[in-house]
Amino acid sequence: MRGPTAHGSVRLADVARHVGTSSQTISNALNHPERLTADLLERSLAGVEELGYRPNRSARTLRNQRSRLIGVRVEPPRPDRAALLLDQFLHALAASAAGLGYHLILAQAAGDTAELDAYEELRQTTTVDAFVLSGAHRDDPRAAWLRERGISFASFGRPWDTDLDPDDGSDAGSESPWVDVDGAAGVRAAVRHVAAQGHEEIAFLGWPEESDVGRDRRRGWAEACHELGLPARRQAGVVDEFEAGRDAAHRLLHPRRGGPVPTAVVCASDTLALGVLRTLSELGLRAGADVAVTGFDNTPTAALTTPGLTSLEQPLAAIAAELLRLVDSQLRGDVPGSSGDAHTLLAPTLVVRGSSTR
Amino acid sequence: MRGPTAHGSVRLADVARHVGTSSQTISNALNHPERLTADLLERSLAGVEELGYRPNRSARTLRNQRSRLIGVRVEPPRPDRAALLLDQFLHALAASAAGLGYHLILAQAAGDTAELDAYEELRQTTTVDAFVLSGAHRDDPRAAWLRERGISFASFGRPWDTDLDPDDGSDAGSESPWVDVDGAAGVRAAVRHVAAQGHEEIAFLGWPEESDVGRDRRRGWAEACHELGLPARRQAGVVDEFEAGRDAAHRLLHPRRGGPVPTAVVCASDTLALGVLRTLSELGLRAGADVAVTGFDNTPTAALTTPGLTSLEQPLAAIAAELLRLVDSQLRGDVPGSSGDAHTLLAPTLVVRGSSTR
Repeated sequence: MRGPTAHGSVRLADVARHVGTSSQTISNALNHPERLTADLLERSLAGVEELGYRPNRSARTLRNQRSRLIGVRVEPPRPDRAALLLDQFLHALAASAAGLGYHLILAQAAGDTAELDAYEELRQTTTVDAFVLSGAHRDDPRAAWLRERGISFASFGRPWDTDLDPDDGSDAGSESPWVDVDGAAGVRAAVRHVAAQGHEEIAFLGWPEESDVGRDRRRGWAEACHELGLPARRQAGVVDEFEAGRDAAHRLLHPRRGGPVPTAVVCASDTLALGVLRTLSELGLRAGADVAVTGFDNTPTAALTTPGLTSLEQPLAAIAAELLRLVDSQLRGDVPGSSGDAHTLLAPTLVVRGSSTR
Repeated sequence: MRGPTAHGSVRLADVARHVGTSSQTISNALNHPERLTADLLERSLAGVEELGYRPNRSARTLRNQRSRLIGVRVEPPRPDRAALLLDQFLHALAASAAGLGYHLILAQAAGDTAELDAYEELRQTTTVDAFVLSGAHRDDPRAAWLRERGISFASFGRPWDTDLDPDDGSDAGSESPWVDVDGAAGVRAAVRHVAAQGHEEIAFLGWPEESDVGRDRRRGWAEACHELGLPARRQAGVVDEFEAGRDAAHRLLHPRRGGPVPTAVVCASDTLALGVLRTLSELGLRAGADVAVTGFDNTPTAALTTPGLTSLEQPLAAIAAELLRLVDSQLRGDVPGSSGDAHTLLAPTLVVRGSSTR
């Protein structure tokens, strides 16, 4: 067994030993994350990060002359939202990038147009190999802009135009490589959980009709209620802000003539769910004991509020690893053969806390 | 008055009109933030960000040939802490960097040694002009490493060795340019606030003795109690984790023989304060009405928990602007004449919410 190199470099085998797996597994975690179970992938990437493993750069540099810089947008902070999900995503992306020998360069922008300006500026001033987008949406101008210029990219989030006429070959969205979270599956899990706690009148608090992500999550609620033989009667769609959630909860929990009052509120985000918790306190109701509440994103706030907020955790390490793999394979020239290969939907995991248990 | 340029560029005058101030003020916000009041600086930088203003790149590029890339570390996420302060700081830094025509490049690292490895790698593989450090501390190896290599940098946080023997010319820390928050002043403001609510037995929950930042904040508590003629009797120092705060609060609020029980707990972080709120709920006490609680950092959680957590907000936009100004002036060759010029201490602002009001 050789000792560490002159620079004290960590080798693949060191990481494998640390994690208690094989070098091939660690290599797969970095290059073919889809081959590993979510748990093994998380543990492998944690090991890569803890030991500070970096792939053999000279071998990679010989392979192609690249800047190995990947552009990613950061939005201005929003004090009215718990959703620092994209910050957590950025950490996961930075960890995966380091594992593959890439670095992230930040493009500060609010909105798609500003983002494209920022991309253009990065291209003019810096050699950027590729971009990782977040929040892909219908009629997203970014994918088209990048494709026109032949720039490699992958999106966190679906463009949502892939379910249009499947015979329409011009469907641009389906050509965009993306990784997304299965919001409907997540919300179904949340509804089943509160139903198992004995709740029969389960409301949904989500986003306005225009939101594709919101419709997907609401569909999960309606489907799960239907499967369980429960009514899917009360729901509201509001902007993703704390005060909007607080106001909507007052309306949802107000008795209507003849109608039963919901005893559970499944929400499309932690921000909305935290607004519901505030309303319960104002109404003298106890979260968990009187009304079950669940969120989505498992933001840091969910664990630290009282009672703790039950929420759906997105598998950010796996998402980031797959996005980097997609970008890396494009940059290495082996473009995925079918667009189907480049679309990955991952289910979130329900983390149960006091807000939904009696 | 000329119209927008061919690329639809936003000019300084457009930002000035948007904000309702002069072009000189906007220029100062970007180049001499210390000349503006905190409020005007915040509004000016918000305008720069909202309109997407970018300085005239060609003029800057002629001035010197630089990559205009600034390296900054991101840490792995910590699920047990509310302190996403450094994420919020990263957004502020990205906004200020964009305003001065710089881009941030992320170095993923956990701990100082991994951070220096990441810096070395960035230097070998990418042209990075400078680094912005965060969490400077006593015997910080990073400042010495960067100075030895003649690399420009500035730190968010003091090295804390500046108050050693002032005649010792070898004091390296004082030569490092830094911007920091006046923690003692912040905690003094929190103590005065809870005293004004009628509390007389005010406890402090902070960090272990080894923490310079923690000692500074605890000093603010002791000083304010002394000024107000109140006893500074009960305090605890624990690691900055939710469960540690929860446990410590049980001890602090447990009656001792003959001693009065605190009715207010001023904390060194939101994470600890959120742990205290959990304990109050477990003891059947109401935050605000029975026991006042304050945090530090004004993390997103502080606004969204119930009741809202009173907390000290760090002026991150001003801190980021000053750090970028320090780095920019080093890169332009006009190194600040005296080290005193390069040390800025800014006071945080108390944001009062339900956790500290009756």
